[in-house]
Amino acid sequence: MEKSSIHVNFERLKQTLDKSSQIGKIPDDGLRRLALSNDDKQMREVFVRWLELGGLDIRIDDIGNMYGRRSGLTDLPPVLIGSHLDTQPNGGRFDGILGVLTALEVLRTLNDNDIKTMRPIEIVNFTNEEGARFEPPLLGSGGIAEVFDRNFIYSRMDRNGNTFKEELEKIGFKGDSENRIKDIHSFLELHIEQGPVLENEQISIGAVEGIKGMSWFELRVIGEGGHAGPTPMAMRRDALMVAAKLILHIEEKGELSGPETSVTIGRMSVKPDVVNCIPEEVLFSLDIRHIDDNVRERLIDELKKELKEIAQGHKVQLEFNKLWEVKTSTFHPEIVNLICNGSKKLGYSVKRMFSGAGHDAKYINRIAPTSMIFLPSVGGKSHVEAELTLDSDIEKGANILLHSVLELSNYKESLS
Amino acid sequence: MEKSSIHVNFERLKQTLDKSSQIGKIPDDGLRRLALSNDDKQMREVFVRWLELGGLDIRIDDIGNMYGRRSGLTDLPPVLIGSHLDTQPNGGRFDGILGVLTALEVLRTLNDNDIKTMRPIEIVNFTNEEGARFEPPLLGSGGIAEVFDRNFIYSRMDRNGNTFKEELEKIGFKGDSENRIKDIHSFLELHIEQGPVLENEQISIGAVEGIKGMSWFELRVIGEGGHAGPTPMAMRRDALMVAAKLILHIEEKGELSGPETSVTIGRMSVKPDVVNCIPEEVLFSLDIRHIDDNVRERLIDELKKELKEIAQGHKVQLEFNKLWEVKTSTFHPEIVNLICNGSKKLGYSVKRMFSGAGHDAKYINRIAPTSMIFLPSVGGKSHVEAELTLDSDIEKGANILLHSVLELSNYKESLS
Repeated sequence: MEKSSIHVNFERLKQTLDKSSQIGKIPDDGLRRLALSNDDKQMREVFVRWLELGGLDIRIDDIGNMYGRRSGLTDLPPVLIGSHLDTQPNGGRFDGILGVLTALEVLRTLNDNDIKTMRPIEIVNFTNEEGARFEPPLLGSGGIAEVFDRNFIYSRMDRNGNTFKEELEKIGFKGDSENRIKDIHSFLELHIEQGPVLENEQISIGAVEGIKGMSWFELRVIGEGGHAGPTPMAMRRDALMVAAKLILHIEEKGELSGPETSVTIGRMSVKPDVVNCIPEEVLFSLDIRHIDDNVRERLIDELKKELKEIAQGHKVQLEFNKLWEVKTSTFHPEIVNLICNGSKKLGYSVKRMFSGAGHDAKYINRIAPTSMIFLPSVGGKSHVEAELTLDSDIEKGANILLHSVLELSNYKESLS
Repeated sequence: MEKSSIHVNFERLKQTLDKSSQIGKIPDDGLRRLALSNDDKQMREVFVRWLELGGLDIRIDDIGNMYGRRSGLTDLPPVLIGSHLDTQPNGGRFDGILGVLTALEVLRTLNDNDIKTMRPIEIVNFTNEEGARFEPPLLGSGGIAEVFDRNFIYSRMDRNGNTFKEELEKIGFKGDSENRIKDIHSFLELHIEQGPVLENEQISIGAVEGIKGMSWFELRVIGEGGHAGPTPMAMRRDALMVAAKLILHIEEKGELSGPETSVTIGRMSVKPDVVNCIPEEVLFSLDIRHIDDNVRERLIDELKKELKEIAQGHKVQLEFNKLWEVKTSTFHPEIVNLICNGSKKLGYSVKRMFSGAGHDAKYINRIAPTSMIFLPSVGGKSHVEAELTLDSDIEKGANILLHSVLELSNYKESLS
């Protein structure tokens, strides 16, 4: 059988996805399947049955990451595929779930067609990608990549004071550290885009070249309060008026810096926050992302200088505090090429792109050659009930994953 | 004795003020003397003793307003002077307190000098001017002016569910409706400016011509949410970015409209208010004041039109909801002149000005010829612990009140 003629069984994939969409279901087609909750437990148990039915060797590691291994003709390091089955509190049915279930469909299709691969293939479900219940996110993949040590992961606490460790034991998914995947030939994660770019350009497949670096800041503008009535405008040092000027300067600067830059002010608070009081203090967040760390850092340096000048010009104080920073991750170009070439061969439109958001692939990229396949999000929506990826795109994505895995699992050499 | 040579006894006034500054004292020289609280009760009891020692006829009305009457040579309608003894939760020692205690000093000085006036003079302490415990403010003066009926006033509730009526009875200051002052020849209220204008211009006395009308609005900007990472800036409809543009347009428009206009955005909230989420909705307040109601209304009409255009240009929705409105109050020009002439005679600097904030005088102005005397607030501060009016200004203010009262209480005719 000519490999390029193999296709996934979309009806079966759709049924599998429908079953997942029932577990933790909330109104408006949403899902609430928080990490290590009862719903997560139920989903994991269903997933175990599916792995068993697929004839896969199942392992659970000490962080609760789940693996299903399909043997290869050799014991060379495996190709890893998958993502995560947990969701946000008001999440959708697709997100990372699509990455795990298309991976399952890929293995089922290989079984259907009785295809042997040189390398083993492993499917993975990472624990607590979302970070919605236990912060920070990406605990499962970060654990494998040794970004977080086990004690740190175990001690994470939810809002009710339950630790990660207790909850992992309670749902019966605490395995052995020996089961962690170690030597990985390559990792490929399919995920929804979570943004509007693919839909807007009417493209089905995103070949993800990396994850944009980002910096988070908190800016505090300190002016002078006073009563709205008795204080003439010319005598004010209104923190909110100056904050509005700073925000527009940030926006303009971000736009001038090119389409790859994004700046976002997502959080803002005003003190004392009373209709007839002149704001004495304004606090707002700043999220800056760019694929080039140097561009991001230069932009930050310039912004710091310029914003301080604007603040001084209005006789208010400005504090600029860094909350968090992460550098750009660059994925393996050979895997990116493989996604692009596969798409062209199958006649699917494809676009090389960077991810603006973090994914398990970010941490696995530290220990193995990695890339991601993005599928369009209708309206760019994600982490909401209305999250949607069209059937036709899901089918194309699963086929690209299938063909990429077939290629990777027959690589003799490791990817340099 | 030549009347213009009479002066208040500043040392005595200062001691009286010091006594008041102990009742409800909080750190940093502040006062917390909420309406109908135990501290208010204690202050009222001390005030009753002072009225008794002054030989005044004391009355308490059904809203708890307190009066002390000094007889005149006739029973013509009295001159009313005073203000309020309650404070904000973190208030200062001056505010309206200065208006009541300088009035007391005026009556004591008349007694000292054995001066008979044609008209009776009454001192008043209005209940719940601040509105900090029972909303709305100005309940005592508003009750007398029949802006609020008694049942409305009695049913006001504090945050602990205690009604105005219960608390008024509890502190023992619920009097008779017959005791409400009815026929007032003129009302004169001394108060701190609560703004920086007098200090800035190094002027001791403000002769208040009226209270600026104002409008309060709530503006809602409805854009589109999304993840900060995956959504390019050019594809966003960021409610906060547009709100910043609207705010700066409002500020510019307010400034162009002249120094008598003030616009303030005091309250603001962002939804969902998360660092890496594009704001989908922003809500903010708008407070607009001007001495000319027509100017204010024209400004509002223009702003509504222009802000909607800006919002449309950025493809976001804008809602513009009126919360509250009050027209400009114009005080009696003859009393304003009297304050100015008195100041000149005594060699004090004086400025005609409008009040940007509301006062008991606003409501009493509806039923009697009224004006106010403003004294400088250091740094323009008020409703904070650091509120301060200098001794020299307090003494001048008390003397102007004294001489204005001497004039008014010897008017044969009513003021037309």
